[in-house]
Amino acid sequence: MGVEERREQLIGVALDLFSHRSPEDVSIDEIAEAAGISRPLVYHYFPGKQQLYEAALRRAADELSARFVEPHEGPLGARLLRVMERFFDFVDEHGPGFSALMRGGPVTGSKSRTGALIDGVRQAAHDQILAHLGVADPPPRLTLVVRSWISLAETTALLWLDGRQMPREELERQLVHDFAALAAVSAAYDETMADVLRRMLADEPENGMFAELVARLMELPQPV
Amino acid sequence: MGVEERREQLIGVALDLFSHRSPEDVSIDEIAEAAGISRPLVYHYFPGKQQLYEAALRRAADELSARFVEPHEGPLGARLLRVMERFFDFVDEHGPGFSALMRGGPVTGSKSRTGALIDGVRQAAHDQILAHLGVADPPPRLTLVVRSWISLAETTALLWLDGRQMPREELERQLVHDFAALAAVSAAYDETMADVLRRMLADEPENGMFAELVARLMELPQPV
Repeated sequence: MGVEERREQLIGVALDLFSHRSPEDVSIDEIAEAAGISRPLVYHYFPGKQQLYEAALRRAADELSARFVEPHEGPLGARLLRVMERFFDFVDEHGPGFSALMRGGPVTGSKSRTGALIDGVRQAAHDQILAHLGVADPPPRLTLVVRSWISLAETTALLWLDGRQMPREELERQLVHDFAALAAVSAAYDETMADVLRRMLADEPENGMFAELVARLMELPQPV
Repeated sequence: MGVEERREQLIGVALDLFSHRSPEDVSIDEIAEAAGISRPLVYHYFPGKQQLYEAALRRAADELSARFVEPHEGPLGARLLRVMERFFDFVDEHGPGFSALMRGGPVTGSKSRTGALIDGVRQAAHDQILAHLGVADPPPRLTLVVRSWISLAETTALLWLDGRQMPREELERQLVHDFAALAAVSAAYDETMADVLRRMLADEPENGMFAELVARLMELPQPV
């Protein structure tokens, strides 16, 4: 194997191990064994566990960001649902590592560098949503809706991982509905946001994600 | 001053300094100066900056948790709004320290201990909300709504601190509405949550927070 190829293989092996157990429980020896090479050879490619963890994290961040990319076609609700499905696939595949990282527990690696990677993924999610909404220069209220919804998605995923007490399909749909709900709350008090909401709903089919939500909400108990 | 009194004074001085600047920029010398005592005397009470930071953080956590306590009287929306006002008071008073801590940037102090303090405050918020809803043993979907709304409140506060581009009064109201919206989305698909929502709305007056939201939402563009 060439140097680059070997590095890439090691990153893949490490990501797999870091994904399935809390990162601090994974040793260089295990990584070496899983890769079928000697411990000194691992150190030939990476100075230590921290660098290997950060490289694995960078690959995971790139992978997750890539899953946010969705063709600009069809109703927005359906697009967001497909992204949520891929997001939960990722969360499912990298469960323990994702939890350890996002809970900010004892993580191997530089805190500022891992923080920057997480922020990069959040930024990618934010940019994709704005691109789908067709908004280049978001007003502060839209940024607030998008960013707070992203934190909601993270929390939902973490709570799901903690015991998997609800079916993920339900949470994927719920997150799409939560986005619409948060946008609607903001639109209820702000004209610019009402415009954004109008555009969001413009291409929704009668049996679309958002129409379904509104119909169901109409059947709920109303305050006096 | 007695030992306990002096310790309490130092914690107060430190909390004030840590609240107004990023904690790593605050030196023991400054704390000593602000407290009007010598640097060695500070070390007599606290082994180092880390312990002083953690003590200050503990006081801030207690203070914030205390603000969540609200009499069980009157409409739920109005109660939650009062808590939001006190939450934003706190965020306002401790801005830079709150941001540095919650963004997980380079924080003085043990990461697991500061993390435990943050989780304690989240737990206090969660418990108060459930007590007001009159739910002792929350179903997973309610826990999800409460916990994800708490993360939403944190994100909203952090975004507000970052430039204060929206009036805080608007965000306080919006968070109350967001809670109702997230509960309604969950209720749209789950009978137990519909019961919770029914109870939430039971004592709402005609001009209450939730009724106002529903009225405004009704005027919004509807999907087809």
